[in-house]
Amino acid sequence: MADNTDAEASMNGTPTMMAAEVAEQPVALEATLEALLPLRSKIGQLAAGRKRLLLVARGSSDNAAIYGRYLAELHAGIPASLAAPSVATLYDARVDLSDTLAICVSQSGSTAEIVDTMAWTKRGGAATVAITNVEDSPLAAAADLSLITQAGSERAVPATKSYTTQVAALAVAVDALAAQAGKKGTLDDEFARVGDQARAMLETPAETLDAMAGALAEVDEVLTSGRGIAFGTTLETALKLEETCLRPVRGLSYADLKHGPIAIVDHELLTVLVAGPEGPTVAGLTELAGTVREKHSLVLGVGGDEDFRAACDLAVPGPDASEYLAPLTLIIPPQLIVERLARKLGLNPDAPRGLKKVTQTD
Amino acid sequence: MADNTDAEASMNGTPTMMAAEVAEQPVALEATLEALLPLRSKIGQLAAGRKRLLLVARGSSDNAAIYGRYLAELHAGIPASLAAPSVATLYDARVDLSDTLAICVSQSGSTAEIVDTMAWTKRGGAATVAITNVEDSPLAAAADLSLITQAGSERAVPATKSYTTQVAALAVAVDALAAQAGKKGTLDDEFARVGDQARAMLETPAETLDAMAGALAEVDEVLTSGRGIAFGTTLETALKLEETCLRPVRGLSYADLKHGPIAIVDHELLTVLVAGPEGPTVAGLTELAGTVREKHSLVLGVGGDEDFRAACDLAVPGPDASEYLAPLTLIIPPQLIVERLARKLGLNPDAPRGLKKVTQTD
Repeated sequence: MADNTDAEASMNGTPTMMAAEVAEQPVALEATLEALLPLRSKIGQLAAGRKRLLLVARGSSDNAAIYGRYLAELHAGIPASLAAPSVATLYDARVDLSDTLAICVSQSGSTAEIVDTMAWTKRGGAATVAITNVEDSPLAAAADLSLITQAGSERAVPATKSYTTQVAALAVAVDALAAQAGKKGTLDDEFARVGDQARAMLETPAETLDAMAGALAEVDEVLTSGRGIAFGTTLETALKLEETCLRPVRGLSYADLKHGPIAIVDHELLTVLVAGPEGPTVAGLTELAGTVREKHSLVLGVGGDEDFRAACDLAVPGPDASEYLAPLTLIIPPQLIVERLARKLGLNPDAPRGLKKVTQTD
Repeated sequence: MADNTDAEASMNGTPTMMAAEVAEQPVALEATLEALLPLRSKIGQLAAGRKRLLLVARGSSDNAAIYGRYLAELHAGIPASLAAPSVATLYDARVDLSDTLAICVSQSGSTAEIVDTMAWTKRGGAATVAITNVEDSPLAAAADLSLITQAGSERAVPATKSYTTQVAALAVAVDALAAQAGKKGTLDDEFARVGDQARAMLETPAETLDAMAGALAEVDEVLTSGRGIAFGTTLETALKLEETCLRPVRGLSYADLKHGPIAIVDHELLTVLVAGPEGPTVAGLTELAGTVREKHSLVLGVGGDEDFRAACDLAVPGPDASEYLAPLTLIIPPQLIVERLARKLGLNPDAPRGLKKVTQTD
């Protein structure tokens, strides 16, 4: 739990806890990768004979899990999906999961919904992996294998370093599944570069970040859009903007956006587009930037290539990374923007109204 | 495509096409069930040996597919998930679907994204079922088995009878999967009652519907929430409100709502809660109604039990149906509200700005 008194005091000049924790991500990511990469053979053994991946998560962890889902299908060729926790916790349905590896993601490892859903996957026959930041947690204790992220204590309510280290843990897990499935080539070379990629993201020019926060401060409606591997980053950008800055913000795939919601895009709405550095989604997002600007919506871009950024009103580059691993650090510019925006709005980024660090749902 | 001139003329006193099509649903549902129920044995044969269900859809059809996903896990005990079409259409990833039945849902049967994704599931080894309203469509032609909904021609852009008949087709398909999986008891008795349930929904008191439309007309922000089997109806309510009435509207599970977005609930936001008539989600939604009202958000309720409706500011009952089949008709009161709201706002419910009947995405 955040300590409000400290947090409010820290807003007078000194960095907020959120800002400090955002800045800790290069080290947290490196420590997490160092701890987890050697576990790939154990993950592979646990996954042997399992034909599908089920991800169990909620909130920011859910956005990390969405990344894991795409990466599993694209990098490992394994069908992957997100669990609907209510099927487990409210309905307790009997579902055959004997061919399934379940990866359950919770920062605290103590959210009852996730702990209970993991127990349900076990009853259905699944092998289980926990991804959590707390080694001594119920989720870690109950899992067949635990991947403990090395984010350290996170005191600000908005998840930042706990989120990016979850994303890293999922990348490691899926890389192990890819090897187990006989796919050639690991992501090793690039894992070694993630810390520096995070450092580069922290160097995003302050004036552009300030301009983006300024634009966001002037609108009531915000929509974020992206697709594919970076879609989880898109949804996390929306969630951070909403929970930290108390604005209603939606994250939509650009395909879903075209099916209905595009009708409401106008000058009163600001659009944030989030793109990986390469890959087949960038062209569509570049086109979308043009379409949305024609509707007089201001467009902020994060990541993408030069054409993409040129198509936006304001843009910052993402990491110099492959599309597969960019989401480990692509969220850093949005985190920096959100922290600035909260302060600009007179809000405390460390302790948004109405939110607790550990959310209990049934 | 809707004919704008006709549609605008029809708003001067005579019913809109949307209203007429909403009213056709009892007959459309009965005709669809009559046509499709006899195909259950064929569906079962096609599904033999298939251990998971993959649903492929977008837009309103996606909301129908979400119902199918929950029903498959709860009624048939089969793991089910929604495809991420970009994995197929943009990335063309090689994913092993040899244990999978893919059900692809598209009103027109000609949306390239869905047709292409179905072809991709076949390349991965899936058996395929098409659910479409157009017998002579590319989707129907390419599927191993086609379930043709009997909605008839739908001229208003907002999907109404094409949506509910898709939901019915999914109920039939999952009932076949349940029988194939050796589950006892079909939904036969209740399928026979769906037409009358739809008729009862059309008799929802006009004054309550008008009051709800009036309340919606006075706010800029709307959020819909629900969970479990009725979650697809919740999302469809949000999509209809948004695309027909040009308001930004989000649909969220009540668990996701508690993870962040609850922070933005206040008197400027109206909440629509959608609940099945029974089942383990109703108590949580009743509690949520109280929580949201404490935050001074007006709460409109659709469905649920008497306690649920008493906890809302305004509420209408759902169908006298089981939780499993309620979604075939539970959307009718929201459709009636949306059509009224569009007219109240001076908008044409038949042809919302910026939308086409068949959306092409990649």
